[in-house]
Amino acid sequence: MSISAFDHPYLSGLIGDNDTASWFSVDADIAAILAFESALARAEADQNIIDSAAADAIETTCRQFLPDMASLRAAVAIDGVVIPEFVRQLRDALAPEHRAFVHFGATSQDVIDTSLMIRLKPLPSRLDADLAAILQGLDHLDSTFGNNSLMAHTRMQAAIAIAVRDRVASWRAPILRHQQRLSFLTQHFPCLQFGGAAGTLDKLGDKAPKVRSALADILGLKDLPQWHNQRDIIVELCDLLAQISGSLGKIAQDICLLAQGVSEISLSGGGKSSAMPHKQNPVLAEVLVALARFNATQVSGMHHALVHEQERSGAAWTLEWMILPSMVAATAGSLRRAGELLGAIEAFGFGTSPDA
Amino acid sequence: MSISAFDHPYLSGLIGDNDTASWFSVDADIAAILAFESALARAEADQNIIDSAAADAIETTCRQFLPDMASLRAAVAIDGVVIPEFVRQLRDALAPEHRAFVHFGATSQDVIDTSLMIRLKPLPSRLDADLAAILQGLDHLDSTFGNNSLMAHTRMQAAIAIAVRDRVASWRAPILRHQQRLSFLTQHFPCLQFGGAAGTLDKLGDKAPKVRSALADILGLKDLPQWHNQRDIIVELCDLLAQISGSLGKIAQDICLLAQGVSEISLSGGGKSSAMPHKQNPVLAEVLVALARFNATQVSGMHHALVHEQERSGAAWTLEWMILPSMVAATAGSLRRAGELLGAIEAFGFGTSPDA
Amino acid sequence: MSISAFDHPYLSGLIGDNDTASWFSVDADIAAILAFESALARAEADQNIIDSAAADAIETTCRQFLPDMASLRAAVAIDGVVIPEFVRQLRDALAPEHRAFVHFGATSQDVIDTSLMIRLKPLPSRLDADLAAILQGLDHLDSTFGNNSLMAHTRMQAAIAIAVRDRVASWRAPILRHQQRLSFLTQHFPCLQFGGAAGTLDKLGDKAPKVRSALADILGLKDLPQWHNQRDIIVELCDLLAQISGSLGKIAQDICLLAQGVSEISLSGGGKSSAMPHKQNPVLAEVLVALARFNATQVSGMHHALVHEQERSGAAWTLEWMILPSMVAATAGSLRRAGELLGAIEAFGFGTSPDA
Amino acid sequence: MSISAFDHPYLSGLIGDNDTASWFSVDADIAAILAFESALARAEADQNIIDSAAADAIETTCRQFLPDMASLRAAVAIDGVVIPEFVRQLRDALAPEHRAFVHFGATSQDVIDTSLMIRLKPLPSRLDADLAAILQGLDHLDSTFGNNSLMAHTRMQAAIAIAVRDRVASWRAPILRHQQRLSFLTQHFPCLQFGGAAGTLDKLGDKAPKVRSALADILGLKDLPQWHNQRDIIVELCDLLAQISGSLGKIAQDICLLAQGVSEISLSGGGKSSAMPHKQNPVLAEVLVALARFNATQVSGMHHALVHEQERSGAAWTLEWMILPSMVAATAGSLRRAGELLGAIEAFGFGTSPDA
Repeated sequence: MSISAFDHPYLSGLIGDNDTASWFSVDADIAAILAFESALARAEADQNIIDSAAADAIETTCRQFLPDMASLRAAVAIDGVVIPEFVRQLRDALAPEHRAFVHFGATSQDVIDTSLMIRLKPLPSRLDADLAAILQGLDHLDSTFGNNSLMAHTRMQAAIAIAVRDRVASWRAPILRHQQRLSFLTQHFPCLQFGGAAGTLDKLGDKAPKVRSALADILGLKDLPQWHNQRDIIVELCDLLAQISGSLGKIAQDICLLAQGVSEISLSGGGKSSAMPHKQNPVLAEVLVALARFNATQVSGMHHALVHEQERSGAAWTLEWMILPSMVAATAGSLRRAGELLGAIEAFGFGTSPDA
Repeated sequence: MSISAFDHPYLSGLIGDNDTASWFSVDADIAAILAFESALARAEADQNIIDSAAADAIETTCRQFLPDMASLRAAVAIDGVVIPEFVRQLRDALAPEHRAFVHFGATSQDVIDTSLMIRLKPLPSRLDADLAAILQGLDHLDSTFGNNSLMAHTRMQAAIAIAVRDRVASWRAPILRHQQRLSFLTQHFPCLQFGGAAGTLDKLGDKAPKVRSALADILGLKDLPQWHNQRDIIVELCDLLAQISGSLGKIAQDICLLAQGVSEISLSGGGKSSAMPHKQNPVLAEVLVALARFNATQVSGMHHALVHEQERSGAAWTLEWMILPSMVAATAGSLRRAGELLGAIEAFGFGTSPDA
Repeated sequence: MSISAFDHPYLSGLIGDNDTASWFSVDADIAAILAFESALARAEADQNIIDSAAADAIETTCRQFLPDMASLRAAVAIDGVVIPEFVRQLRDALAPEHRAFVHFGATSQDVIDTSLMIRLKPLPSRLDADLAAILQGLDHLDSTFGNNSLMAHTRMQAAIAIAVRDRVASWRAPILRHQQRLSFLTQHFPCLQFGGAAGTLDKLGDKAPKVRSALADILGLKDLPQWHNQRDIIVELCDLLAQISGSLGKIAQDICLLAQGVSEISLSGGGKSSAMPHKQNPVLAEVLVALARFNATQVSGMHHALVHEQERSGAAWTLEWMILPSMVAATAGSLRRAGELLGAIEAFGFGTSPDA
Repeated sequence: MSISAFDHPYLSGLIGDNDTASWFSVDADIAAILAFESALARAEADQNIIDSAAADAIETTCRQFLPDMASLRAAVAIDGVVIPEFVRQLRDALAPEHRAFVHFGATSQDVIDTSLMIRLKPLPSRLDADLAAILQGLDHLDSTFGNNSLMAHTRMQAAIAIAVRDRVASWRAPILRHQQRLSFLTQHFPCLQFGGAAGTLDKLGDKAPKVRSALADILGLKDLPQWHNQRDIIVELCDLLAQISGSLGKIAQDICLLAQGVSEISLSGGGKSSAMPHKQNPVLAEVLVALARFNATQVSGMHHALVHEQERSGAAWTLEWMILPSMVAATAGSLRRAGELLGAIEAFGFGTSPDA
């Protein structure tokens, strides 16, 4: 299916990103679900909550388990979440004596939220690397064209001459701040969600904190008390994603404007037109503006999802599922294409800058 | 890929809709593109603008043409639209003497906007049928439970007793108005987009109106002057989609509230919990609230896309591609699941209504 | 206070509109509330539901009643609505024997929703006149500059030459469709809201429809069954408002782009810069883009307000109050300033158009 | 005027906040503008850029200057910003020999952005105090009712018993994280904007950094290189505002649900109904949900404003003016009313909690 342009066989090449797409594949989800159930059994066995032989069996089974997808699909349509049916299938794959130990003390949301976090584990370093690449691209522009003169534009009108480096500096500053924001975010992201039926880990008694800590450790996630009905961490991520694509959209909008008519910028590899073979369209720049506006739109839905009823809101939570992955893909796509766009700048500004 | 929940192997069963998914498949897009190019050649040949033999050849080729997808994907990443490469491939599939007649006088946007419209041709009757089914479901509730008593709730508090039929009437009225809105929309929807490079059909001279009219006729679309940079018709559709899912979300929110604690409503087939086997979750109702909020979020992006620069805005147009299909899918999914939800109501209200 | 730019002593001159501001003054609200209570008493007296002398007394008192504002403010902070305290004060202004007949059978929402509708009564004709003025401005451009040549721009790049009339035609078409949408809207807008405590007019028995019809008649509103928890009519209005400001924003964005550098358009009366006295800023055009994006943002909140719990949602309804008036003001401001902008065009395009 | 509910004589009592309202008064804006111009003259005189006597005269005049508001309003409608006319009036109030030294090297945006920041100087400590008060309120709930039993609700259904302290803990955690976010934000907020015509402080030469640093120092703002076309700091603030109101909206939504029917919570001072005197409406809680959704809607517009064209976008900047003040007011109102709501809880949960 390709309702979303991010999932579309050819549109995804325009706006998407292969890495992030792989994180949201159903295979990655299933792998993460299995990682959770396997790690949970291990952590609980280590605390003598479940039988050690059961944990071994669960780990072994999880390594090779392939769920029946048609049944998952049918069950999700009824249950709203995949986990009850998934756990049922997983239990069926085990010897009868081990079955009750699968998913012990956990609830669907623990698995689904944690699966998301497991899959987003590479995101911070990916964002970090991409932001660094953007900075490198900007540094290259600076060292290559920085002394050139550029007509500043305020309110869509020519203002006074500045240097290309001045414009580049205004592109760079928010990227540096986004790096700081990312660093701040990673103080509690990505993190384990583990709370059981109602967030109290009621079935684990005094051992709950130790199990949670061990589970976080095995899965390589930050250990946080349950946040199943507190979505601020997720929203903070999305705010940052929309900030990044917004700042890149600003660079791109500038380039669209620079590339008009008596061009102050030259781009290699512009897009073709089916009606006007002479044209070179600044397609990459336009795409970045579109991605900025896309994320600016989506981020609103994530903030609405903060109003999460009581211990678990099916409505607010499902809304996140419809929005968050596209924001990740849009941001990764935006970073990828912004790097290409900066690299495609062959000329920028005129002659020598006023302060050369 | 399954970045979008609407494209996800199992989540799509929860929120999506098979029919609309098929409209946004790449196969449907390619079929519609071929239908456009084929019909254009025919319409132009009938007006003696292109060679009749060329039109025959184009029609024949379009009937069986399979584009090379990898090349399309690579080209879209550069050109921002699929058509230049698609037309190149299609021309290559023809005898050299016919190639120049493919896509004659048209531009990429003509094909892409019209392809969307071709694929949305079944939408009005689908919406109409689904709205009628919702009304039928409401009528059934009315005739079955209408006389029962229900506690009206204002500001989340018990107010005074009303009859179930009063609540049902308040659910029905907006659906009836949506039918009127749909009928109004179809005065100019779905419609052909045909304007050429800059909207003036410059290559067709005096024959432009006749070609446009014939093209609309062949494709079964409304004939409208070019609207390539006027997106109000698209936005009007999305406004209606968000209205429909919003009204269904209101019904669903009511049902979520009714289904709490000392239940005033009974639903068959509620969702299972992985931690609490005794629970019956009103999953369908929650999903409808999520879909309502999803569309309420998305509609904003469509209104932003009205600010469409000059004759064609790559940025605003690409933004539509990222939003519109999901809104169609969300609305169709919402209608489908709302019908199921109404059908799952097994008891509603208490005893006999005050005005029985 | 001037938290909102629309209420700001000087910013309102930039973006706002005096007429619509007056509709949302507290004086206009109080006048409309009194009109409702007065008309209700008359309609109920005519149906022998309340005492005729009471109706006379209520009408007389309503003509001159001035509420105590400090008490209203204090009460709204507690009650969430102004009506309980307002009615208390109004009753106090009457002889004891008439007091019980004030607001008989009505509820707060009846008064507040209807007050909004009373104040919006001039809106359709105002929108209609403004849209007509925009069309007249476009016709003037067409007759004055229509034959001039203009460089079409697609994807921010020069494409082929068109005539100014071609661009103007693309600006005109959505305005014409907005006129049709406005006409469709007025089939049920503006309309009376009258439902009593829970929408059933429970205190009026069989006479409810007659009272409602008479009340609508006296107030000059469409008679519709209660819509207190069905906000589609309000949302449809806001959709249209955002469509109008969006289409004007598109015209304005075009003018911003046209007014750059080697200008294809000349505007009189551009804005001054405090740092660069030589500049002529296309301020009106920028403001229109801002208003378009403002409404595109706000419209989302209105669609969220469709999810209105049961018979009355304090949350969803209060959200409307925070959004709708600004949308009306933004649209009226947008129409006003768009008329000025079109009138400020002193030159458009070059020489003679290709099809002259 | 009272187009905005935040500026409305009585609605502002429901949703607004007096302190923040005062920050957005025109008087506060004028005071901040004068503070900027006065401080700029002093900083420039200290660097021997302008005449010292001129700086004295400017400081003296700024202390008592009252602009002509009607002229400001008329000028803003043309210039899009108040500063050109304001500076003209301020110069007229000075002896001719000092006039040229007013606003030297600055541009309108420097003054307007910095005026905003001056007025927002109390915001961090206000937010910090309010968040602390919320935490105190939560601690009080915990110590008073923490051991009581509460029915956890997942997916709008009774789940298992938890303790009131468990729910309270889930309300507290995001507030604690918001404190951290606020602390992070204040690393660069509130900050001076000072860049001159195009961000390069072109008129100040080598002395630019010293003047900027001194200006920041006098005004008590963080010293940052110009950010006139980089709006991420503003957006980061708004993200945090929407996070705070969102988390409070979640608490409030919970309370709305708890206060239904067989109530698990008792609130003092509920709102009155005009039709049903027996009702106690959870008005405060509903208002908080409305404010959460309001900010969730508005935040989208702020992210769109990141796409800020070149050195200054009249369109994107004006959009901020229409959105940001309401977000501040909504958040301050939300914090104020949330404190009241928590204080109004008279009973919470039942008997003794399971882990007491």
